[in-house]
Amino acid sequence: MGEEVVKLFRTWSSPYALRIVWALKLKGIEYETIYEDLSNKSEALLECNPIHKKVPVLLHNAKTIAESLVILEYIDETWTHSPNLLPQDPYQRATARFWAKFGDTEVLPSIWDAFTKGPGKGQEEAHSRALEKLMWLEEEIKGKKLFGGEEIGVVDITLGWLANLVSVFEEITGLKLIEQDKSPGLWGWMEAFAEIPVVKENWPPRDKLVAKFHAIRQTILSKEAQTDQ
Amino acid sequence: MGEEVVKLFRTWSSPYALRIVWALKLKGIEYETIYEDLSNKSEALLECNPIHKKVPVLLHNAKTIAESLVILEYIDETWTHSPNLLPQDPYQRATARFWAKFGDTEVLPSIWDAFTKGPGKGQEEAHSRALEKLMWLEEEIKGKKLFGGEEIGVVDITLGWLANLVSVFEEITGLKLIEQDKSPGLWGWMEAFAEIPVVKENWPPRDKLVAKFHAIRQTILSKEAQTDQ
Repeated sequence: MGEEVVKLFRTWSSPYALRIVWALKLKGIEYETIYEDLSNKSEALLECNPIHKKVPVLLHNAKTIAESLVILEYIDETWTHSPNLLPQDPYQRATARFWAKFGDTEVLPSIWDAFTKGPGKGQEEAHSRALEKLMWLEEEIKGKKLFGGEEIGVVDITLGWLANLVSVFEEITGLKLIEQDKSPGLWGWMEAFAEIPVVKENWPPRDKLVAKFHAIRQTILSKEAQTDQ
Repeated sequence: MGEEVVKLFRTWSSPYALRIVWALKLKGIEYETIYEDLSNKSEALLECNPIHKKVPVLLHNAKTIAESLVILEYIDETWTHSPNLLPQDPYQRATARFWAKFGDTEVLPSIWDAFTKGPGKGQEEAHSRALEKLMWLEEEIKGKKLFGGEEIGVVDITLGWLANLVSVFEEITGLKLIEQDKSPGLWGWMEAFAEIPVVKENWPPRDKLVAKFHAIRQTILSKEAQTDQ
């Protein structure tokens, strides 16, 4: 691997980019980090990801890969040594892909929706919808330590933001999303996941996350208040 | 393969389910079709796909797989004989996954948005957004016969609904989406794709599609007219 060039475009807080940090570190791949300021994107980022203009982007030699789930599979298929991010069995692979997608298309938007609403009926309904989505994850994790079983896998990596951001969102909104008595499986998973060394060592600072998401929420709520008038 | 049980839950018109029809037929897999009426879903479908309650669902022996892109990869990894739906090279696989996802998360919603708006500024804006998304596909197909190159691949299968529905949507709305002079690459792709035998033999009847989507659009537009009052 001596001559390989591996670069990761990320921000300090993007949960999508964090997935790639975890995956590369789990695989032991040396890489260079390029920190982006999304309010002033670099020419290099815009060239590498002209369509979405987003992080993460992985640069591998002359190749550019965007979209975090696509990058995770690329990493697993390029550096095929252990640990494997996806299982080997086709059905288990399909199941992992299903849950990774469910996390991104159902769980994340529903939690974001609840997070970005002010107190009232709309927030209550969004909160209920988020809890419903989380209930499916609770079913899936039941009896397992991690979604990948004993070892971290692509579903854990994809849902990893939950273990980090849920308590941040709870603190800011006062809404409870994952409680030990109501979601013991997910609660246990959050604890186990957060203890994995590559995860523990790479969390963004919590106080900075609270400040950032608090500010985003205030901006959204004040815009909506103006629209409602 | 004598004792294998392969069943596909579909509807006559679902473009997501059609992907699986094409993939199974390309691979030469014998399967049983279960036609669902989505206004009166079968117990079997609800059991197989309790989360999304949608078609397609593939049943393979005792295994259940939902989500069309997940099913396509499952088929390719389970029946590994030619034709391959995904390329072998990790970077080409990543590129194929990127475009398949782009089709589902960007192109399809933008075209649907334009389709479900009545004449006016909102429709014009939605139409422009859809054309912008299609422009990226035009860039990608340039110089190629199919997205998979000479042979049909997962991107062609995922975008296949375009070749079928674009002209249906154009006929109903009067909006042009893919024109021969403006999008010669996509136009050529639509023609080449529609001529592939498994595609040609499995298109839903066009008059039924026009009637169905015309009715859906009318329902959406009349609901919005009521809300606006």
